[in-house]
Amino acid sequence: MVDKKLGGAGLRGQVAGETALCTVGKTGAGLTYRGYDITDLATNAQFEEVAHLLLRGHLPTEQELAEYKAKLKSLREMPEALKSVLELIPADAHPMDVMRTGCSMLGNLEEEKDFSEQDDKIDRMLALFPAIICYWYRFSHDGVRIETNTDEDSIGAHFLHMLHGKKPSELHEKVMHVSLILYAEHEFNASTFTARVCASTLSDIHSCVTGAIGSLRGPLHGGANEAAMELIERFKTADEAEEGLMGMLARKEKIMGFGHAIYRESDPRNVIIKEWSEKLAEEVGDTVLYPVSVRCEEVMWREKKLFCNADFFHASAYNFMGIPTKLFTPIFVMSRVTGWTAHVKEQRANNRIIRPSADYTGPESAEWVAIENR
Amino acid sequence: MVDKKLGGAGLRGQVAGETALCTVGKTGAGLTYRGYDITDLATNAQFEEVAHLLLRGHLPTEQELAEYKAKLKSLREMPEALKSVLELIPADAHPMDVMRTGCSMLGNLEEEKDFSEQDDKIDRMLALFPAIICYWYRFSHDGVRIETNTDEDSIGAHFLHMLHGKKPSELHEKVMHVSLILYAEHEFNASTFTARVCASTLSDIHSCVTGAIGSLRGPLHGGANEAAMELIERFKTADEAEEGLMGMLARKEKIMGFGHAIYRESDPRNVIIKEWSEKLAEEVGDTVLYPVSVRCEEVMWREKKLFCNADFFHASAYNFMGIPTKLFTPIFVMSRVTGWTAHVKEQRANNRIIRPSADYTGPESAEWVAIENR
Repeated sequence: MVDKKLGGAGLRGQVAGETALCTVGKTGAGLTYRGYDITDLATNAQFEEVAHLLLRGHLPTEQELAEYKAKLKSLREMPEALKSVLELIPADAHPMDVMRTGCSMLGNLEEEKDFSEQDDKIDRMLALFPAIICYWYRFSHDGVRIETNTDEDSIGAHFLHMLHGKKPSELHEKVMHVSLILYAEHEFNASTFTARVCASTLSDIHSCVTGAIGSLRGPLHGGANEAAMELIERFKTADEAEEGLMGMLARKEKIMGFGHAIYRESDPRNVIIKEWSEKLAEEVGDTVLYPVSVRCEEVMWREKKLFCNADFFHASAYNFMGIPTKLFTPIFVMSRVTGWTAHVKEQRANNRIIRPSADYTGPESAEWVAIENR
Repeated sequence: MVDKKLGGAGLRGQVAGETALCTVGKTGAGLTYRGYDITDLATNAQFEEVAHLLLRGHLPTEQELAEYKAKLKSLREMPEALKSVLELIPADAHPMDVMRTGCSMLGNLEEEKDFSEQDDKIDRMLALFPAIICYWYRFSHDGVRIETNTDEDSIGAHFLHMLHGKKPSELHEKVMHVSLILYAEHEFNASTFTARVCASTLSDIHSCVTGAIGSLRGPLHGGANEAAMELIERFKTADEAEEGLMGMLARKEKIMGFGHAIYRESDPRNVIIKEWSEKLAEEVGDTVLYPVSVRCEEVMWREKKLFCNADFFHASAYNFMGIPTKLFTPIFVMSRVTGWTAHVKEQRANNRIIRPSADYTGPESAEWVAIENR
């Protein structure tokens, strides 16, 4: 009976609102942002183009894109008080706690006082989130106070530049565009829904995003790409991976990076990031991680008919670009902040406070007993 | 049509899960915590007794209560890094942003690494939240670094002591017990639901509470007691209040502190806090705020059949105790953290990720157009 009730829990299949932003799995596999197929976007667009699509409602013209990118570039200077807070966070903190706290602190320093300011506050978060994670990471791990202004043209290149202290290759910049596009938006997932519940009280934009970061932190939501990395780096060859995976399956261990709550046959994002992971493997001369990943994909499909989701080949791709595993989910934040805030804008434009009901399972009534008689 | 859709929005009346913690308005007016009537609790219990009821599942014996209070008292020392963060937050920041950031920072310093630690982390938040708001407030407003260890026996007295720098009267301590009990829990309201959505990803307890604080910050949720204060302090006499209110009603202005989304005839918390507000008015020799509040209640009922909710007489009560208006909603946090975390524990004990669906209202499909052709 508990199982049965759980089966209906989690609001699965219940409509909690309207959106014009995204369809997930409408034809069993597809993903669209404002009607555009994810493959078209990831193949042809820059991340900032997709951010503009989600947040401003249409794909930008060349002039609009140039202006938008120039604006984002102008917003990279970090307030000194925010730097000081990041310096106070220890090196062994959870990187998602750092993102959550950085976003929340930003709200203290640059409060959204009125919804007319929402686009500016959103742009500021887009511009500053890569610096929040990199500033903390480089300070706590390397003792370096990085410059958060780079002359990089894109958010992805800006992130890699701050992380590695040098200009990234064209290939790496392109992969960051693809990755950030793939993670930008995914309808009423738990973190986005968190942002919408918060927005429905007419709270400020930093509260909405801070809450969403907290939800994305959960292992059932974000973090699957980190778990995929932990899996593939255990193996030295494809054969070893097959043997290891077969053993895990026999022991019914949980294997991350496969299957999806909504997609039935495949995750449309996988084929895209897999292709880029392969290109990166060639670039770095990898003969281990990519073949291991491919074999994992083959084994999981052969044995379980489970397909790779967006996270699986992200693990090797990020690793090839020299990104530490613990920063994988913060990159998700740098991207999904576009989807979250686009949803907040939608919620605000047609709001009713989100306040569901509960089935009460407690005692009908209890008689007060004075403490000395308990 | 938009109105009609909005009418069904916000998950109103839709069951989003189970709870044994609370019933709201089951008989049209009542409020129970684990079956105990709110009037019995507010009349007879200490806040720590109610926290124990919500978080440990039963009213404590005398020994259990003594041990619980001793534990909470032992957890009042604030980490230096958290003090430093609070000192970096400007005096004109929103106090709820301070609470949100303080809670989030605490999660960096004392991360919940495993759910087996949840009770300890919750107790720490209960013990430390009064200090978070008082430390920031006294530092940013008075330039004073307060001591966050007091020898006060209760959370409410501890808060008043840090705020005013002296031991509160017995009456004030009692009113804080009552107030914190009245605000402790209220089923699937928006902030509690935020905490449960976050918990459903199996995220950590600080993320859940940080998100909940962000939702409570919204003017449609917390903050009604602050708005009530702003209303009543406009008037110098009851007659002036009646005149002012009649004018506001004629101009169809929004009047905060009246009516409720769920209660139909009255809010059971109002009669309780009203009585204590009257006692406090006598104590301080008030001849303005309390009579003004009573007249507002009479006018709103006579003209609109709208009753005072829990927030309305809280305004005068807090004011009589010398609490600055901007700290009213943070007190709500100090109390409701018990309900939020009790719900997180429930969600974790029987979890499915909360992931609703959306009605898609966007374009069916859009053809990619290269940027130079837009």
